[in-house]
Amino acid sequence: MKKVRVGVVGTGRIGKLHIDNLIKRVQGAEVAAVADIMAENSMEWIKDAGIPNVYTDYKKIIEDDSIEAVFVCSSTDTHSQIAYDAVTAGKHVFCEKPIDYDLGRIAKVIDAVEKAGVKFQVGFNRRFDRNFKKVHEAVKNGLVGDPHIIRVASRDPAPPPVSYVKVSGGIFLDMMIHDFDMVRYLSGDEVVEVYASGAVLIDPAIGEAGDVDTALVTLKFAKGALGIIDNSRKAVYGYDQRVEVFGSKGCITADNETANLTTLYSENGVVREKPLYFFLERYNEAFVEEVNCFINAVLEDKPVPVGAVDGLKPVLIAMAAQKSLITGMPVKL
Amino acid sequence: MKKVRVGVVGTGRIGKLHIDNLIKRVQGAEVAAVADIMAENSMEWIKDAGIPNVYTDYKKIIEDDSIEAVFVCSSTDTHSQIAYDAVTAGKHVFCEKPIDYDLGRIAKVIDAVEKAGVKFQVGFNRRFDRNFKKVHEAVKNGLVGDPHIIRVASRDPAPPPVSYVKVSGGIFLDMMIHDFDMVRYLSGDEVVEVYASGAVLIDPAIGEAGDVDTALVTLKFAKGALGIIDNSRKAVYGYDQRVEVFGSKGCITADNETANLTTLYSENGVVREKPLYFFLERYNEAFVEEVNCFINAVLEDKPVPVGAVDGLKPVLIAMAAQKSLITGMPVKL
Amino acid sequence: MKKVRVGVVGTGRIGKLHIDNLIKRVQGAEVAAVADIMAENSMEWIKDAGIPNVYTDYKKIIEDDSIEAVFVCSSTDTHSQIAYDAVTAGKHVFCEKPIDYDLGRIAKVIDAVEKAGVKFQVGFNRRFDRNFKKVHEAVKNGLVGDPHIIRVASRDPAPPPVSYVKVSGGIFLDMMIHDFDMVRYLSGDEVVEVYASGAVLIDPAIGEAGDVDTALVTLKFAKGALGIIDNSRKAVYGYDQRVEVFGSKGCITADNETANLTTLYSENGVVREKPLYFFLERYNEAFVEEVNCFINAVLEDKPVPVGAVDGLKPVLIAMAAQKSLITGMPVKL
Amino acid sequence: MKKVRVGVVGTGRIGKLHIDNLIKRVQGAEVAAVADIMAENSMEWIKDAGIPNVYTDYKKIIEDDSIEAVFVCSSTDTHSQIAYDAVTAGKHVFCEKPIDYDLGRIAKVIDAVEKAGVKFQVGFNRRFDRNFKKVHEAVKNGLVGDPHIIRVASRDPAPPPVSYVKVSGGIFLDMMIHDFDMVRYLSGDEVVEVYASGAVLIDPAIGEAGDVDTALVTLKFAKGALGIIDNSRKAVYGYDQRVEVFGSKGCITADNETANLTTLYSENGVVREKPLYFFLERYNEAFVEEVNCFINAVLEDKPVPVGAVDGLKPVLIAMAAQKSLITGMPVKL
Repeated sequence: MKKVRVGVVGTGRIGKLHIDNLIKRVQGAEVAAVADIMAENSMEWIKDAGIPNVYTDYKKIIEDDSIEAVFVCSSTDTHSQIAYDAVTAGKHVFCEKPIDYDLGRIAKVIDAVEKAGVKFQVGFNRRFDRNFKKVHEAVKNGLVGDPHIIRVASRDPAPPPVSYVKVSGGIFLDMMIHDFDMVRYLSGDEVVEVYASGAVLIDPAIGEAGDVDTALVTLKFAKGALGIIDNSRKAVYGYDQRVEVFGSKGCITADNETANLTTLYSENGVVREKPLYFFLERYNEAFVEEVNCFINAVLEDKPVPVGAVDGLKPVLIAMAAQKSLITGMPVKL
Repeated sequence: MKKVRVGVVGTGRIGKLHIDNLIKRVQGAEVAAVADIMAENSMEWIKDAGIPNVYTDYKKIIEDDSIEAVFVCSSTDTHSQIAYDAVTAGKHVFCEKPIDYDLGRIAKVIDAVEKAGVKFQVGFNRRFDRNFKKVHEAVKNGLVGDPHIIRVASRDPAPPPVSYVKVSGGIFLDMMIHDFDMVRYLSGDEVVEVYASGAVLIDPAIGEAGDVDTALVTLKFAKGALGIIDNSRKAVYGYDQRVEVFGSKGCITADNETANLTTLYSENGVVREKPLYFFLERYNEAFVEEVNCFINAVLEDKPVPVGAVDGLKPVLIAMAAQKSLITGMPVKL
Repeated sequence: MKKVRVGVVGTGRIGKLHIDNLIKRVQGAEVAAVADIMAENSMEWIKDAGIPNVYTDYKKIIEDDSIEAVFVCSSTDTHSQIAYDAVTAGKHVFCEKPIDYDLGRIAKVIDAVEKAGVKFQVGFNRRFDRNFKKVHEAVKNGLVGDPHIIRVASRDPAPPPVSYVKVSGGIFLDMMIHDFDMVRYLSGDEVVEVYASGAVLIDPAIGEAGDVDTALVTLKFAKGALGIIDNSRKAVYGYDQRVEVFGSKGCITADNETANLTTLYSENGVVREKPLYFFLERYNEAFVEEVNCFINAVLEDKPVPVGAVDGLKPVLIAMAAQKSLITGMPVKL
Repeated sequence: MKKVRVGVVGTGRIGKLHIDNLIKRVQGAEVAAVADIMAENSMEWIKDAGIPNVYTDYKKIIEDDSIEAVFVCSSTDTHSQIAYDAVTAGKHVFCEKPIDYDLGRIAKVIDAVEKAGVKFQVGFNRRFDRNFKKVHEAVKNGLVGDPHIIRVASRDPAPPPVSYVKVSGGIFLDMMIHDFDMVRYLSGDEVVEVYASGAVLIDPAIGEAGDVDTALVTLKFAKGALGIIDNSRKAVYGYDQRVEVFGSKGCITADNETANLTTLYSENGVVREKPLYFFLERYNEAFVEEVNCFINAVLEDKPVPVGAVDGLKPVLIAMAAQKSLITGMPVKL
């Protein structure tokens, strides 16, 4: 069986996750090389994984003609440059989200992808969650008719360190960006206006860092539907990820994943499991599936499921939401 | 609007419940008289209820020609005699279960009902529960095809006093009798063989009283289906009353009723309400509905939903179960 | 037992509903008189109900000194006048919502209530739904900590006739007003800012009548929480009435009521019952409960659960929402 | 990282499944060789999988000293011989269920395992299902107190070919054997008596083959609990695998797995996904987990979770059930 030779740039948490999946769970790929400026920190597990080439400079991967596809899993500020270099070298690219926070740099990558004619997939892993995929398909197949109201509840179990919040780009670019992608995916429609409201209810330090920790964004879609996303940095009961699409013929909802489907009846009540703790647990299979899709797109020369433009759109919505929060006014896209 | 003049014999717990419902919840009835050998104990609420005639001797009700229907809510050992007297006097009868534990006396009542041509309904209230009614109708309408497996889980929240257990007739006649009626109602079929197993797991005193507190009965039905009923005298989480009919085209289940439909997500889990505590809470509306059905049957001269023979059959099954428990062998009916 | 003598003004749908409940389901009340300018249309059932006095002029009720409490169930434009007259005559008043759409008239009623020292309850029946009551109590008792996000989904099964829409006051005053009351009830907090978005997605005739049929309103609360209400005039699967309060210690949700709790497993899927069709079905028990609470407040001289000010506040929020929809800007209260 | 060198005997459906998992999902193993008398039929995927050695004679695996562990996945009648040979050669063995239908041969294997001091695990994969594991742990940790009633519903989506039924050993040895293992696993107790009833309700040909297609077995446990297992060869809505343990402190149930957690509300009802189709779908992860546990037991010299005696016990119960069905009497073990 033909296998795609892959180079992975970035061996931090998300890089390691993709490498593990590429090796153990993805049939059509082999990891030919990894690159990380701090590669020495990861040498032990990289060796254990049996990866033949380890570099500190990602350009070694770009220069290796035997490598067909590059995974960009480095720090956010380096995504667009590495992606651009890989694409212009004719390599297929799987790029973690966001491509960039600078619209000009994103545009440059999109241009390069079009010229090179390579596959370029953005890591919006939630699209590959079995539940959201089913909602997407139900909407697409008309099971709920024309969408009227799209709702996403998306709440993290615990806030990141304030040091991270400070450089995160704010809740809309850092956290709700996934949900902006989700409403596009679920509705099959484009957002044309946003109104954002936010509050600091969890940790005053987040407010001092210039961000909010609780946010509601109202959306208007091109075909007329209305949307609502809520975000919280702290849901004490776990990672709360639910969606709902209400339309002219019905409504479809997706519930949270749990560790198991047991119910315990006792004097204290009827208890089920909490939602899985966070994204690594919840989207474990979705991470595998998105990479499988990318590798298959390369192997069979098919379109990727989440393209470069899909990487741009949520950034535009997030920026509009941020502007709305600051001005207190709705913002058109 | 024409109203049925009703006399109620017995003003204990179940008598009071029916009187309250007849007055407040049943449109077509008026309570013309009550009788109880201990009527003085209940004088306060009987007066409050505005009931015009109160007797210690139930025969005063039988002799009152203006009374069309009699509710037999006295102690079990007096059911068949009072019912017989009322029926032979040409009155319609609503009789609490069981009609009697003596088959001869039940037969005598059934004969009298046939001769008098009156309405005679037995108080198997669970048939009027909205959930079980839906299961019954689904089975009748073929939604699950031919029944293959009928299952009833029926567990009380707490055992009765041992003094009661001693005179109760045993778990099969006292408690599971409702479930024997239920499987007939759900399946639309007759039981032809039973095998009972029991255990004393909750209170040794129940065992010393010659009874079991936990029981499983396997059933065979005339058309070939198999059935299973489990009883426990003590479910610490409340009154557990669930049924399931599995057949050639599907399966239908009925879940427990709860105080409300909220779900609380917290660090401790995802908690829903427990089942309602006991039969007064769970079957509150069913008690109203069974009496409404009886009164309407009288008013409109329609068949009653649970007739005298339906009162006999579960007693036969219970006796067979008891024999099976003692002999350790299956028993044919 | 002492009973409150009640006069009911208005014998249309909601009037009849309260009369039926007062007679059959409320212990401490008797219906002494009814008044309706079209009373002759209802003579049959009024007689059947055994109500001794029937008037065309509500003033006959006001003038009857034996009547302690008046139910105002007439057309909306007459609520405030009748309520005012009854209150100034020293009668307790149960007033259907809204008191009025004119703030001055509402203020006049509130003043009169304060001066007269009578009980005045507004008919926000949903507060008496067993599910919402539980959510309210859970929040009040701190089970979810400080509220951060309050969500209400409130969707009717079918739009009213366009002729009604034209005089309804718009979706915010006619429909979402219940939800504005609900968020106050659930959060225990006051709304300080609203942003409304709306769309015509169900029937263009609703748009031509100057209204929207789908609406989302974002709310800010005094203590910092954010809220979101969605309304649709047409949920084909029935009356969709769900709420959720998310806070620092957890989240509580309330699900829809259904005809029963069965589940049917077949080749076509696993099917449960739809939500109950509309408010008469869903809030049947809540209508009984609100009147029971009012009558008990009168009998025991206790505060009513939903006072005159509670009737004013949702009108203010609805007006702000309407202004927001027209201007496209958030509106402070 | 040290890896266990494994030889797999049998490359049919279950053999291929284990091989796939060993290669892709199990960290600590490598497949060094496979053997199958019909190996040529599987040559393509075996080559694709990169397995270095392929034999028609399993003895080649036994003779290979570099192989530490043998998976016995051949036809049932060869299990005990191959297992015996592997064990006496000092190899650890993972043996598909049942070890044998002949008690003498099972005893011989158990003896050999004890003498050789090797690991021997039986393929009761359901113990590794996340739901049943949770129920087992809850019971073990006392969350439901002393078990009183253990219930297993276990229904296949479609019957096997009648040709298979004829040689299957009957429903108790072929199908319910898994459930006999399950009740031991869930209760932590031993079965001391069984009573079986059965019926031919799905396909008369199954009856003509001397078997039943619907069965109920009542169980008594050593510590006093009662149990009930129902089996059907045909649940049209998919693979129905639910368990329940009721005890002195509560009750725990495990629901079916589904393709996703969405709910569709439409005019036709509220629809969720059906149970997953059959064991390959439902127990996919359990198959991975059982092998991971075996390999870890070998690597870390820990006890296996399902030993040789656990392979024997369900066969004894199944034989007693068969005897009970034929005689119509309860059978003690």
